[in-house]
Amino acid sequence: MGDRFAVLTIGDELLNGEIADTNTALIGRILGSCGYLLRDSLTVGDVEPDIEEALLYLASCRDVVIVSGGLGPTEDDLTARAAAGAFGRRLVLNDEALGLIRDHFQGLGLDMHPRNEKQALLPQKIRVLPNARGTAPGFLLQHNGKDLFFLPGVPEEMEAMLQASVLPLLRERGGGSLPMQERVLKVFGLSEPKTEELLSRAGLPEGVQVAFGVDFPLVAVKLRASGKSAEESLDRAELLARRALDEFVVAVGEETLAGNVARMLTNAGLSLAVAESCTGGLICSMLTDIPGASAFLERGAVTYANSAKQQWLQVPAQTLAEQGAVSEATALAMARGIRLAAGTDLGLAVTGIAGPEGGTAAKPVGTVFIALDAEDQPKVKGYRFAGGREKIRRLSAIMALEWLRRFAASRRADI
Amino acid sequence: MGDRFAVLTIGDELLNGEIADTNTALIGRILGSCGYLLRDSLTVGDVEPDIEEALLYLASCRDVVIVSGGLGPTEDDLTARAAAGAFGRRLVLNDEALGLIRDHFQGLGLDMHPRNEKQALLPQKIRVLPNARGTAPGFLLQHNGKDLFFLPGVPEEMEAMLQASVLPLLRERGGGSLPMQERVLKVFGLSEPKTEELLSRAGLPEGVQVAFGVDFPLVAVKLRASGKSAEESLDRAELLARRALDEFVVAVGEETLAGNVARMLTNAGLSLAVAESCTGGLICSMLTDIPGASAFLERGAVTYANSAKQQWLQVPAQTLAEQGAVSEATALAMARGIRLAAGTDLGLAVTGIAGPEGGTAAKPVGTVFIALDAEDQPKVKGYRFAGGREKIRRLSAIMALEWLRRFAASRRADI
Repeated sequence: MGDRFAVLTIGDELLNGEIADTNTALIGRILGSCGYLLRDSLTVGDVEPDIEEALLYLASCRDVVIVSGGLGPTEDDLTARAAAGAFGRRLVLNDEALGLIRDHFQGLGLDMHPRNEKQALLPQKIRVLPNARGTAPGFLLQHNGKDLFFLPGVPEEMEAMLQASVLPLLRERGGGSLPMQERVLKVFGLSEPKTEELLSRAGLPEGVQVAFGVDFPLVAVKLRASGKSAEESLDRAELLARRALDEFVVAVGEETLAGNVARMLTNAGLSLAVAESCTGGLICSMLTDIPGASAFLERGAVTYANSAKQQWLQVPAQTLAEQGAVSEATALAMARGIRLAAGTDLGLAVTGIAGPEGGTAAKPVGTVFIALDAEDQPKVKGYRFAGGREKIRRLSAIMALEWLRRFAASRRADI
Repeated sequence: MGDRFAVLTIGDELLNGEIADTNTALIGRILGSCGYLLRDSLTVGDVEPDIEEALLYLASCRDVVIVSGGLGPTEDDLTARAAAGAFGRRLVLNDEALGLIRDHFQGLGLDMHPRNEKQALLPQKIRVLPNARGTAPGFLLQHNGKDLFFLPGVPEEMEAMLQASVLPLLRERGGGSLPMQERVLKVFGLSEPKTEELLSRAGLPEGVQVAFGVDFPLVAVKLRASGKSAEESLDRAELLARRALDEFVVAVGEETLAGNVARMLTNAGLSLAVAESCTGGLICSMLTDIPGASAFLERGAVTYANSAKQQWLQVPAQTLAEQGAVSEATALAMARGIRLAAGTDLGLAVTGIAGPEGGTAAKPVGTVFIALDAEDQPKVKGYRFAGGREKIRRLSAIMALEWLRRFAASRRADI
């Protein structure tokens, strides 16, 4: 019933692996926020017959097409010519477009380079769309009731023209739906199928769609609804999903797990110091990524060498010799040691073998101990994580953050 | 004359603005390095009729189609069913695929969740492609002489399967051209236009193409050549580019700046300790990302609080009071302090204001001091970096690594 929207992005660099196409996502986000949902997206290279073929295909089966790329001044910019060819129009020097290009250079105190005149060669019977941020004007070409918007490929120019010209023209056209609203729950400790199973029994309200994404090792649950009561439906859905997934929901919306931990520790007035071995600064880096981390994080130690563990964390030489640097006892001593050195409420420690070297039969690669020391509550646990060095480090860091989140949550419940 | 290659990526998240499609670029890069050039790329959402329509369209006009996404265990993963529908095959439980999924879970010491059985429901008469890194097997479906490869959407799984299964099968198929070879130089300290200008005067050999990419704050210079003498042309081009860009080339090929630093420090037998304030563990995290970092990295300190700077790094209270925690004097004292505490050859320190809070008129957000202390060579410098918190942290970390690289390079030249 609604209009069918498509995107066409043009450029060799999008197909030969040089850069990823970010314009489709940008267009999808902006149109989506106004209730226009993209049906599909096509990418072709700087090849005139391929551009023509794609334009004809999309004009045959979609109602609105946003085209980006190929409007520049150089020889490999072929979009206007291909559009003229595809829809049987002559390519003519468009005075309005030429005036805009001249104005752009004048605004910069420059003369127009003769090559830029090419950017005013446009198909006949189009509507020029001004480009406030660059030289390439865009245009709207209408064909059999279909609207084809041609925009430059530079993301910031394209985005500004989408907002300034395309959205107002789409509003005139009508045919959008109410925007889809989304709420994301980030889940840790459940597999994707297990998450889906629990949610399938949650009795989510009708009209709420569920989609899943993975940001290793987290699963993102996306609750979506549209229409006038979308907000209420999502509130209800979030409540039911939280009940179903319980303590496995570690963050909601834009917030990351680290951001959630930072907020909870700050609110609880808990100070923290971190001692890292195999994660090598990753936990501190994730926490200090959050503005205001200095409110709770006193210090961190990356103690790769045993001498550092002894000197800064007071890990007994005997513990290191008898139990090894990767052991329950060492993890506990590191957590206690960093807490006492820093004088904080909490001391967190991680020690493990991230590989690829360093594993043994008793302690293979992936063996990781996490310890959390609070005044009377030292706690330690050993894990055996699967995967390569990067996965093991990331999983260790996320698991350690999750320990902090649960501790802060339990603390809050005590009050 | 050659086979026509296309990509189809599947997922609502690629069209609603949630994430940009990076798989097309990844596939384009890998296929391109083997001489297979992508003709076009299509993206559709998790909508069965749309997937069917796209498959039928591509099978009608392309010879090889790489499909990614929609092979997961959840209800919104519809690719296998759509493929069965599009090509009139029955969807059956594939025993080989089921065995692979069971094996994957067994390897992790886990039982298979019953929902994962769905991932073995595949069209009839296909060839199963094993997935060494995840649960979703892929498959090759042949239709009227066209090859359609179905791979999961998770980039690392997709990439591994492309290398392990798809490329060998494409080689059997034949039809590729001579591969384009590529050599990447990573440049730090020059803008993209400046890099291009210097290279334009380098006199690169004919037949060598140059493309640019940006991985903030690095610029990637991509030298490409094909044909039988590609290797020699690239050797010559690399030499000339290195001469033109000189010390601004910080890494070559797959190696990262951190990896280069790790290798150079290890080779030079230099040991290192790092004290971080505004980068909060990012430098240590980048260095420990490299396997074998323990060969040179003795320890790291994330000293957010002044007490940590005094206690562990012996920064004088007077320096902190009079010059401030973000100052030349403090950076120098931190570098000296961590070197002496760790007993290493080098002490590296970074202190700064990453924002968004904490800036003053005299020391605005972006003020960063880097210090490197070697036995008789303390060195310190202040920077004023532009951008938000993430950019300032990343630029600070990369700049500090670049100090290490230049120090190690100068050391090597002394020998």
